[in-house]
Amino acid sequence: MSKGTPGPAPSVSVTLTGMSHVHLDRLTRVRAAMTEQGIDTLLLSVGHDLPYLTGYEAMPLERLTMLVLPRDADATLVIPRLEAPRVTEMPGVFDLVPWGETEDPTAIVAGLARGASTIAVGDQMWARFLVELLPQLPGATYRRAVDVVGPLRMIKDRAEIDALAAAGAAVDRIAAELQAGRIPLVGRTEADVSAELSARILAEGHDVVNFAIVAAGENAASPHHHAGSRVIRTDEIVLCDFGGTMNGYCSDITRCVFTGDVASAAPEIADAYAVLHEAQQAAVAAATIGAACQDVDRAAREIITAAGYGEYFVHRTGHGIGMEAHEDPYIVEGNARPLAAGHAFSIEPGIYVSGRWGMRLEDIVVAANDGPVPMNSVDHRLVGV
Amino acid sequence: MSKGTPGPAPSVSVTLTGMSHVHLDRLTRVRAAMTEQGIDTLLLSVGHDLPYLTGYEAMPLERLTMLVLPRDADATLVIPRLEAPRVTEMPGVFDLVPWGETEDPTAIVAGLARGASTIAVGDQMWARFLVELLPQLPGATYRRAVDVVGPLRMIKDRAEIDALAAAGAAVDRIAAELQAGRIPLVGRTEADVSAELSARILAEGHDVVNFAIVAAGENAASPHHHAGSRVIRTDEIVLCDFGGTMNGYCSDITRCVFTGDVASAAPEIADAYAVLHEAQQAAVAAATIGAACQDVDRAAREIITAAGYGEYFVHRTGHGIGMEAHEDPYIVEGNARPLAAGHAFSIEPGIYVSGRWGMRLEDIVVAANDGPVPMNSVDHRLVGV
Repeated sequence: MSKGTPGPAPSVSVTLTGMSHVHLDRLTRVRAAMTEQGIDTLLLSVGHDLPYLTGYEAMPLERLTMLVLPRDADATLVIPRLEAPRVTEMPGVFDLVPWGETEDPTAIVAGLARGASTIAVGDQMWARFLVELLPQLPGATYRRAVDVVGPLRMIKDRAEIDALAAAGAAVDRIAAELQAGRIPLVGRTEADVSAELSARILAEGHDVVNFAIVAAGENAASPHHHAGSRVIRTDEIVLCDFGGTMNGYCSDITRCVFTGDVASAAPEIADAYAVLHEAQQAAVAAATIGAACQDVDRAAREIITAAGYGEYFVHRTGHGIGMEAHEDPYIVEGNARPLAAGHAFSIEPGIYVSGRWGMRLEDIVVAANDGPVPMNSVDHRLVGV
Repeated sequence: MSKGTPGPAPSVSVTLTGMSHVHLDRLTRVRAAMTEQGIDTLLLSVGHDLPYLTGYEAMPLERLTMLVLPRDADATLVIPRLEAPRVTEMPGVFDLVPWGETEDPTAIVAGLARGASTIAVGDQMWARFLVELLPQLPGATYRRAVDVVGPLRMIKDRAEIDALAAAGAAVDRIAAELQAGRIPLVGRTEADVSAELSARILAEGHDVVNFAIVAAGENAASPHHHAGSRVIRTDEIVLCDFGGTMNGYCSDITRCVFTGDVASAAPEIADAYAVLHEAQQAAVAAATIGAACQDVDRAAREIITAAGYGEYFVHRTGHGIGMEAHEDPYIVEGNARPLAAGHAFSIEPGIYVSGRWGMRLEDIVVAANDGPVPMNSVDHRLVGV
């Protein structure tokens, strides 16, 4: 069973009932991309490519679930017999091959994939299944399925953008409560505040919490700090980065608050935050159709570097988001991909001074013909609470 | 970031601070197993082999974290620079190689693994990293790391058994509340009850909820049913299978309750439950040192089959448990492995009649020299609530 509370995120088939024409359309486009790229067979297991194409999400289990999708023949979903009752069958989309507890499922997959010379596999498939397949499919060349499914998933349609907007509005409401001082901080542990954020994410309609980072003072200098027993004090920055999955699509927001009067914050903190705020807004503004992903990164980085904080901005500016919390396109130096309408991604520059403090400011943004559309709009300033 | 509430499960280094001699000892034994099995290099990423050996758990991210462990040379942890602050450094255990956002981490790993002819990779490593490594390490043969790390992880030491017992006692207390009728059922949805079980799992001290299956009436016939909008009615079986991770080790329990007077249950339900109860107890009793895993499965299956329900027991009898919810040894036909002291596993036969009802009864059991030791002891009967 998957980690997560209260259970695996519902798959698209649950949230968009009866939308199998959407899946059929996606499968047609994937097969066209396979033909274009010379890929004979696609193998999808754990991860989001499978629900994107079929509506069914594989459980992250030692029991193999795998879609075998040949370019020119019918697709087959190989699935543990005890999971089969959970599958919404889709005649014309895929056939179902349930396997019993004493059968060898990789042999079944190898039989279905036999003869393929170029095979693309899902990014998050467990490596053990590929290790087991390698000797059973001698001579095959392997590629990443993201090359064929990724470009489709990257362009969000109207229903997907609406889902991202709804998830974004939900976490905005939590951030607003935080900024209004209605989520107490001083005297509580980071872990305690993290648990409250998690509860609120679920209460706001998310199906699962993906993360709820709460990092106080010097802990905020570790970008992925694990909320712990550190008690939050007055006059320090508290970085909160949280999100989950709602109706199959992810939210992700970061706001920092200051536990005291912001006017009394150390000048370096106020100065750095002003720079961060300017950099984040500049990167959002730069996220126009046709701009290269790396140009959006540069828009933030140039401002932070010019202000002397360049060495403290230790990560890329953002990541794509959709069914997955992190997916293409990545907003990073070296990624020359031009933004297109429907691309959804985070813009989240940060400044981290080891041992002292850290700060990050994050919105989700969708690229559109009329300009970048933020999915988050709650106050971007450093608010005192 | 990992799915889960309120965040990634703490790694062993967090819960067992200063235990690096444990890790050193484990590394020594893993290297001995590598020599014995002719494995040159071990590659570990996402999954539990890495924290078992180093205390550090990799985040399930597109950013690569990987331990490169040569049989005869120092180990190296290749890690995203922004995660490096979270690592407890262990001189003598591994060196740290942080990589920056614009570097190619698989090239770094390939450089460290160059020359290895047999490479073992962690089961849950994302396949994308193996796909990227394949052309960079031509001629290498791949094996599953579970062959070398699994036998170590399977034998739980005293501290690990204590952790399993504590997690088991925690979910026992929740099951007792369920059986006492203090978790209302009738009139609520499965999803609502699942959310309450999840909240109680956290309140009982778990760090993360792994699953909370609630399946009422005909839904219980799907072994991994996803708790949904079905409202629980009177006079039906409600199957509850729940667990999480507490101090790095997992709990997992299943109890069924009957929403009404058990004496008024349909005779076939009472009869089937009596058979299930007998089968589960017989399998626990059969889990003695030296017994083959498949013999434990047979002990349950023979009783259920003799009573005429064989075709409705559609899954194996159990799975190993420890840092992972499902791990070796599997209690399944075809697994001739003899049980050894310290093996920990579930015993969970079930009977599922499609479209009508289902039932399962599960305890975690540790094999010991004095006989099987259950980690759960709450009432095994079908209790009316």
